[in-house]
Amino acid sequence: MKTTAGRSNPEGRSLKDEEMERMDAYWRAANYLSVGQIYLLDNPLLREPLRLEHVKPRLLGHWGTTPGLNFIYVHLNRVIRAGDLDMIYVAGPGHGGPALVANTWLEGTYSEVYPDISRDEEGMRRLFRQFSFPGGIPSHVAPETPGSIHEGGELGYALSHAFGAVFDNPDLIAACVVGDGEAETGPLAASWYSNKFLNPVTDGAVLPILHLNGYKIANPTILARIPPQELASLFVGLGYEPYFVEGDEPAAMHRSMAEAMDAAIAEIRSIQRKARTAGNMAPPRWPMIILRTPKGWTGPKTVDGKQTEGSWRSHQVPFGDMAGKPDRVPLLEKWMKGYRPEELFDGGGRLRPELAELAPKGTRRMGANPHANGGILLKDLAMPDYREYAVDVPKPGGVTAEATRVMGRMLRDVMKRNAEARNFRVMGPDETASNRLDALFEATDRTWVAATVPGDDHLSPGGRVMEILSEHTCQGWLEGYLLTGRHGLFSCYEAFIHIVDS
Amino acid sequence: MKTTAGRSNPEGRSLKDEEMERMDAYWRAANYLSVGQIYLLDNPLLREPLRLEHVKPRLLGHWGTTPGLNFIYVHLNRVIRAGDLDMIYVAGPGHGGPALVANTWLEGTYSEVYPDISRDEEGMRRLFRQFSFPGGIPSHVAPETPGSIHEGGELGYALSHAFGAVFDNPDLIAACVVGDGEAETGPLAASWYSNKFLNPVTDGAVLPILHLNGYKIANPTILARIPPQELASLFVGLGYEPYFVEGDEPAAMHRSMAEAMDAAIAEIRSIQRKARTAGNMAPPRWPMIILRTPKGWTGPKTVDGKQTEGSWRSHQVPFGDMAGKPDRVPLLEKWMKGYRPEELFDGGGRLRPELAELAPKGTRRMGANPHANGGILLKDLAMPDYREYAVDVPKPGGVTAEATRVMGRMLRDVMKRNAEARNFRVMGPDETASNRLDALFEATDRTWVAATVPGDDHLSPGGRVMEILSEHTCQGWLEGYLLTGRHGLFSCYEAFIHIVDS
Repeated sequence: MKTTAGRSNPEGRSLKDEEMERMDAYWRAANYLSVGQIYLLDNPLLREPLRLEHVKPRLLGHWGTTPGLNFIYVHLNRVIRAGDLDMIYVAGPGHGGPALVANTWLEGTYSEVYPDISRDEEGMRRLFRQFSFPGGIPSHVAPETPGSIHEGGELGYALSHAFGAVFDNPDLIAACVVGDGEAETGPLAASWYSNKFLNPVTDGAVLPILHLNGYKIANPTILARIPPQELASLFVGLGYEPYFVEGDEPAAMHRSMAEAMDAAIAEIRSIQRKARTAGNMAPPRWPMIILRTPKGWTGPKTVDGKQTEGSWRSHQVPFGDMAGKPDRVPLLEKWMKGYRPEELFDGGGRLRPELAELAPKGTRRMGANPHANGGILLKDLAMPDYREYAVDVPKPGGVTAEATRVMGRMLRDVMKRNAEARNFRVMGPDETASNRLDALFEATDRTWVAATVPGDDHLSPGGRVMEILSEHTCQGWLEGYLLTGRHGLFSCYEAFIHIVDS
Repeated sequence: MKTTAGRSNPEGRSLKDEEMERMDAYWRAANYLSVGQIYLLDNPLLREPLRLEHVKPRLLGHWGTTPGLNFIYVHLNRVIRAGDLDMIYVAGPGHGGPALVANTWLEGTYSEVYPDISRDEEGMRRLFRQFSFPGGIPSHVAPETPGSIHEGGELGYALSHAFGAVFDNPDLIAACVVGDGEAETGPLAASWYSNKFLNPVTDGAVLPILHLNGYKIANPTILARIPPQELASLFVGLGYEPYFVEGDEPAAMHRSMAEAMDAAIAEIRSIQRKARTAGNMAPPRWPMIILRTPKGWTGPKTVDGKQTEGSWRSHQVPFGDMAGKPDRVPLLEKWMKGYRPEELFDGGGRLRPELAELAPKGTRRMGANPHANGGILLKDLAMPDYREYAVDVPKPGGVTAEATRVMGRMLRDVMKRNAEARNFRVMGPDETASNRLDALFEATDRTWVAATVPGDDHLSPGGRVMEILSEHTCQGWLEGYLLTGRHGLFSCYEAFIHIVDS
């Protein structure tokens, strides 16, 4: 294990042994439940020797990213409890659906939303069976996954969704896992620039966690294979302060991750305090975590003699053909028993109480955070009567007017009426004025947190018109903003905009 | 002026005064022709006092980026002549169409392709009149612009087009101007990673020139407003060696640009030599130039008392309403005469011979480079008979086969038959194996120039299957490869791929 973060403190031991061991057990529980979802139809606690009929006939799911997502979840739970944080979890590798389902079941939110998936052995059996199964749930993070505003599927929007979620939510932190596959996409690559649009006074914070597990479907990833000094340089250049957590030995990794998390949260709080109480608006260098782990961490080391943990072979189901190869069912049983389920669940299949207490309570649980369920926070916009903006046309052809300029005046008044509620923004690729919506600038500015020079036109950190020359970022910001219960408009004249928007 | 490139040599004076003055005159000629295209219907040499009827009634075009594109063109001409380089020009800010039209007219290619636009006063008059005019030419770089493989329009693909052009063209250098607006887009942000796929032995080189003119349409750009050390860190992190050329005083800028160009070309040659003769395949750090100039450089300093040069107000036409405001026609005349056309063109409107000789000759002219006119280089692929891959089906339903696996076998043989011609590649977002085209790996590898580890599967710098998890980059690479006269296939199973591809 190597902790290269200059600011972290490898000897600091912020994590006590006892807590570390319980967190490791909680992580094992999440991993156990993840494997169970991918593979099992029945026999969820492995009370009986595992047999072929306990295994799903068709295996569909993504193991590779899942243990990393679980590892991050348990560490976020720790800092949420320690700091009473208001936090949501954006899983860029949304194909790791088993992780989010497992964790929300462990913390209790899953069973609150879906009472038939109870927190006991029968619930666990159903939890496993429903996953990626006819009549069940998708294998990806989906709208029905508690705590999710970000679906698995098209990669690229994790970070812009996270930023969209925290705009105008000053107490919210969006922890955003960015996979090293997604990091190669255009929409994601551009969205790192979102930090130039985040106001530390009135917005919340995003904690990006770049998860380098090294492989995509069948290839290594770029960011996992560039020299470490280039990797650090890249994120410093993007305006972040990276904390590195790297390795595969669980105890050391728990300690390193806890230290990085503590440092990152402290840094977020420090930036916010400086801006909010001391008025320091120098563009901050927000923390991020770069987590390097094996792909399919804790999964089978080899299958058929080929490296599987730490390889692209872990991307989906590490081994299949359960009926055709006699070593498969015992291999699965050995893998799952390696998590020592008897230490994790009681005789009734319930998470042991000393582990259950590691989860935050109530709406602090990431599966129950109301920001991830925007409909319950949504308030109607205060709207003017659109008739007031009608153009008076006393006789046909007698008046010259522009439709969007008229609309701009109405948007200006929408902006004014909702200024106090802070729940309306306009996004676009630097076309607000071109689109004749510039009456908006009578009511607000363009959002801009980077440097300014004399002569700049309506730029300020508090501006509510967000202009970046990336339609993908605009789209992601707006989705994140809307899905957390606010309102907005994305204006663009490009012929291809309906494509980006689709 | 500030040259911050550690490697450049501000005192070196690689550019002699006399040559610098001629280059400056050539640049002024290109700028003069650019303004003329945007504004004038007639009176191209300003022989008569400029009057309203000499000016187009409707002004449409983009001045802001144009003087920078012209500046780069004249400096590329210099290094082409000095090193007999095989070079094409990819203008990311393709809306700066006047620059490419002006330069190809100055070097003679425009009149060779379009003889009615002759190299004399009458040709200049037509050149001006046709621009962005009914029955004329687009205001953007377009397929009919000599030397262009990259249209103005949707921003984001300049760099991936440039890389696509140089794959398998070991002697070619694609100079690629990336605007600081385009640099905010997702497709462009991801395409910097293309350097991880460029084989210094068998591919050519891309020379990215990031042009920070500071403004988009009505906003500053992100990369122009981040601290200089972050900017350098960003591109070092992306694997480039940035050379900075910054300022607005022409003589100093010519010297600085010439030094940066000389250094960059020498570095490209050095990387290629090390790889090709010494077999050094360590991932190279390719040079790039970061050019910081005012937007609308050399244009009117102010219009109506408002800053215009060095401002977003220069983005399109710096001033219009020629009929309505009496100061406008004299302002235009003063601006154009400031380029001292009498020093640039002879009495017949022909570029003076001492300037004309600054352009390269024949197909070394960037407007005449055959790589930018792929149709003349295109050779048919050697194809097997597709009937040989037919699946034998003796009775209905009697055979199990997969359509794409069969296709994969044919693609494998296409790859083999054209291995020597080196004119066929397959691109995709890491789905070649998933799409059952993996028979290709019997004939070639995946392209990979970054680090490798034991257990990697078919990765090599010479591989011809290009897998990056960016559909946008794949699309751009393939377009660049095809438009320079080669063949390829982009395979993807994503539901949205027809959108990226549209």
